[in-house]
Amino acid sequence: MDVQAKPHEQLADALSVPLAQVDALIRERMASEHAPRIPEVTQHLVSAGGKRIRPMLTLASARLLGYPGPYDVHLAATVEFIHTATLLHDDVVDESSQRRGRPTANLLWDNKSSVLVGDYLFARSFQLMVETGSMRVLDILANASATIAEGEVLQLTAMSDLSTSEETYLKIVRGKTAALFSAATEAGGVIADASEDQIRALHVYGDALGIAFQMADDVIDWMAETGKGVGDDFRERKMTLPVIRAVAAAQGGDDRAFWARTIGKGRQEEGDLDRAHQLLVETGALHSTRETALGWSGTAQEALRALPENPLRHMLHELADFVVARLR
Amino acid sequence: MDVQAKPHEQLADALSVPLAQVDALIRERMASEHAPRIPEVTQHLVSAGGKRIRPMLTLASARLLGYPGPYDVHLAATVEFIHTATLLHDDVVDESSQRRGRPTANLLWDNKSSVLVGDYLFARSFQLMVETGSMRVLDILANASATIAEGEVLQLTAMSDLSTSEETYLKIVRGKTAALFSAATEAGGVIADASEDQIRALHVYGDALGIAFQMADDVIDWMAETGKGVGDDFRERKMTLPVIRAVAAAQGGDDRAFWARTIGKGRQEEGDLDRAHQLLVETGALHSTRETALGWSGTAQEALRALPENPLRHMLHELADFVVARLR
Repeated sequence: MDVQAKPHEQLADALSVPLAQVDALIRERMASEHAPRIPEVTQHLVSAGGKRIRPMLTLASARLLGYPGPYDVHLAATVEFIHTATLLHDDVVDESSQRRGRPTANLLWDNKSSVLVGDYLFARSFQLMVETGSMRVLDILANASATIAEGEVLQLTAMSDLSTSEETYLKIVRGKTAALFSAATEAGGVIADASEDQIRALHVYGDALGIAFQMADDVIDWMAETGKGVGDDFRERKMTLPVIRAVAAAQGGDDRAFWARTIGKGRQEEGDLDRAHQLLVETGALHSTRETALGWSGTAQEALRALPENPLRHMLHELADFVVARLR
Repeated sequence: MDVQAKPHEQLADALSVPLAQVDALIRERMASEHAPRIPEVTQHLVSAGGKRIRPMLTLASARLLGYPGPYDVHLAATVEFIHTATLLHDDVVDESSQRRGRPTANLLWDNKSSVLVGDYLFARSFQLMVETGSMRVLDILANASATIAEGEVLQLTAMSDLSTSEETYLKIVRGKTAALFSAATEAGGVIADASEDQIRALHVYGDALGIAFQMADDVIDWMAETGKGVGDDFRERKMTLPVIRAVAAAQGGDDRAFWARTIGKGRQEEGDLDRAHQLLVETGALHSTRETALGWSGTAQEALRALPENPLRHMLHELADFVVARLR
């Protein structure tokens, strides 16, 4: 194994056999004899790559506890199907035209196909979890699905709402990212017949990792050095944690009026992005969000201590560093 | 009980106690403390009425076998949630502006809310079924969900495709209507701990009832007397069974060219609807589809013979007559 490899590459290496089984299962289950549009659309998404973090979280969680398979493979395919389905629906909701540098399915085909193929993948994921025969796994994934859907609706209604609280932000983040991460790790533990303490630890790890990951993303959207499209969230009037904290810390009526105009009313002018960035720095909002993200990464690592020490656990530990590495 | 009442009214009367429990459960579970948009959208749909055929099918199936509750109530709410979710997604896909004479949710709010609230209802339905604790029920509903989603995609791709076969049409009809009907009845039998023969009979009943119901709808779209918007399917270039059979029976090159132009290419002119209707009558396509629908209604009634004779069974028998009554 390449010791210089990034944690997700190390995981992909260590889990290459079950990951290949996951890929084969995904290909098999997204086929539809009678509706060739379905594999067309999903193939497009699946072949677009992505790091397959979620299926690896399931496989790593189950196998670091000694589980030999095969149902973690079903679960890993399940979480990847759920993830892909939410991407398809998100692209319709966001009216996106690009994902991972490629045209989105709703642009290549149409919104209709994105909605319906998303539904198809949800249904397929549901069949896969039933095959595991574990009612507890179904309970975990049903609850995660509800959290995801509620978080998405919440994000839609919270957008441009200056009164959005940190609590609401956290619910949105859990819906967008952390609920599926924690379901992926917790379900892995359940299928491996882990102890209650271990299952709880895996849940906390996945939840905290997902929150750290999403929070880092929300900080990076404001970091000029990263080369990513800076200020996308500002233009889309998203109430991410840096903005929530900057709004809360706004000193004068001027600053409050600035946020009300740019985010609340969406009337943005040249120079506004710079001023917004300046306010995020001056109020300490950007710095404190970075600290909070690092704190969640630490929470994830702390949780791992309840699990057996082995190479997979080590990689999960490194992964928690990696998702916030861009902030350091 | 009013002996003149229609079968679905008789069922609503006989099942009024569990139906009220279903309504209460639906109200409770569609609430979302943090995303008030969700009950707004769903309330709109649920209060729009509809006959609640699907929840009644579940309750009647379980209770005609002597099941006292309570999990048929969960299942009935589940199927109504799945139905409502598919309506929300259908309205986005069809770009509808009216349903049951009222503006659709996608028009009142936006497509985004319809997609995401639909996802939320799917997730909620999933939680409700997990609460029944029956893996077999979950298996039935997972398979039904996949059939529904596949049928919807198939309908999208088969639209305006003149080579659509009767087999494909049947798959679409199962996806649109019959898969949820048969899941509703079969799951009712499973939760009531019925014998395998009885469960099988309930499945056949629901499947055949749904097919008869949808086929009758597709015939009625071509019947001038019914007062409904005649020819909607023609304008939308839907390959319903009457058209499939008329195309197959087209005698001359002229008739084939007519279908290729109006359905295949969608170039419709004044007088085309009349000519299409004439071809459907002349080829016997409309008549034979009516016969086929009546046949499915008979299949549904036949299946009931495996079940205990009681008033609920009698109402289900009448219901199978009722869904095709408009054809007689």
